[in-house]
Parts: sequence; C-alpha cells; structure tokens
Amino acid sequence: MTDQLSTTFAALADPTRRAILERLSRGDATVGELAEPFAMTMPAISKHLSVLERAGLVTKSRDGQRRNCRITATPLQNATSWLNEYRRHWEANLDSLDTYLTRIQHQEK
Amino acid sequence: MTDQLSTTFAALADPTRRAILERLSRGDATVGELAEPFAMTMPAISKHLSVLERAGLVTKSRDGQRRNCRITATPLQNATSWLNEYRRHWEANLDSLDTYLTRIQHQEK
Repeated sequence: MTDQLSTTFAALADPTRRAILERLSRGDATVGELAEPFAMTMPAISKHLSVLERAGLVTKSRDGQRRNCRITATPLQNATSWLNEYRRHWEANLDSLDTYLTRIQHQEK
Repeated sequence: MTDQLSTTFAALADPTRRAILERLSRGDATVGELAEPFAMTMPAISKHLSVLERAGLVTKSRDGQRRNCRITATPLQNATSWLNEYRRHWEANLDSLDTYLTRIQHQEK
C-alpha cells in the first residue's frame, strides 16, 4: 500500500502533470481545454489526468454539458507542509555552516 | 531525459527516502547510522541512498574513516518554490469559493 504523500510526490514527478496542475490552479477546465497547449493526444492527456485523479489532486464534475476538471488543494498542502517542515531544519544547518565559515574567515585574517 | 524537478519529486515519492532526508536534515550521518532505525538491510538502504544521490539530494563525503551522507538543500528548495508558487493560485481560488459560499448563504437567509 502506498502512502498518500508518496502518491502525491509520484504524481508531481512529471512535467505534463505539473503543467496540468498549473493550468487548473488558475481555474477549472475541460479535458479538451487542458489538452490544447500540449502536443499530445486526448488519450495521453486522459492518462495523466487519471494519475492526478487517483492521487486525489484533480476531481471531475459535471456542469450541464461540460465535464470540468478541478484541482484539489489538500494533497498539495500536505506535500508543501512536509517540505516546509524539513526546510526549517536544513536552513538551520545552512545557517550554522554560514556562521562557521564566517568565523574561520575572520580567524584567517 | 527527465527534468530536475521530476527527478526530485520521484525521489521524494517513497517513505524510506523521506525518512532518510528527515534524519539528514538534523545533521550528517553514515550509511550505518542511517540504516539503524529501519528494519532494512544495508544494501536496501544503499539503493535508496543511490536514488537520493542521483537526484542530487544527498552527497557523500569522506571525513577520515567516516563516509558521511549530507543533505543538499537546492533541489528541495526548488520543489518547495514550485509548490509555493501554485499554492498562491489555488488559495486565491479557495478564497473566491469562500466568498461565493458566504454570499449565497446570506441570500438564503
């Protein structure tokens, strides 16, 4: 069984899928509208959309004749939270390294 | 050819690899020290470390007898930047939805 965070990161590990999310972050779109900017067939786009749907990053809804794709923020928020949490640690480490380097540079003078 | 951001996200799409990065965000460690908390063989840990090294997330350095693993922040910073950039969009969308829902709730009263 794959955990949610791994599924989210795996779904983000593709430039076309990230471009689809970038487009959807600006508003809902049909599969046709999503396919337009890509030199890809509809089945190829649909396959990427399925990965995003299975990862819970995109949901489809019907609005009359339109079948809209919509971005779902929660998995992206969880991924961002994970990265931000560990960024605090590694930035703290970089700060210590900076302090250390500044100190030895002063000693050398 | 896979782009750097895809390689980073693919490397993050595994709970053991994320746990290794969490450990390294608190300071350098040897492969043995990294293997300790996991119910995994050294070759299994080394395999995960190779994925992290190829993704540029971990570098190995020699300190006398010790071969240290160190986290490299840049790819993680780029991944965080990507997520933060699109978060602005989707949070703006959520705000619009909130405003809309508040408005229709007022109209129903």
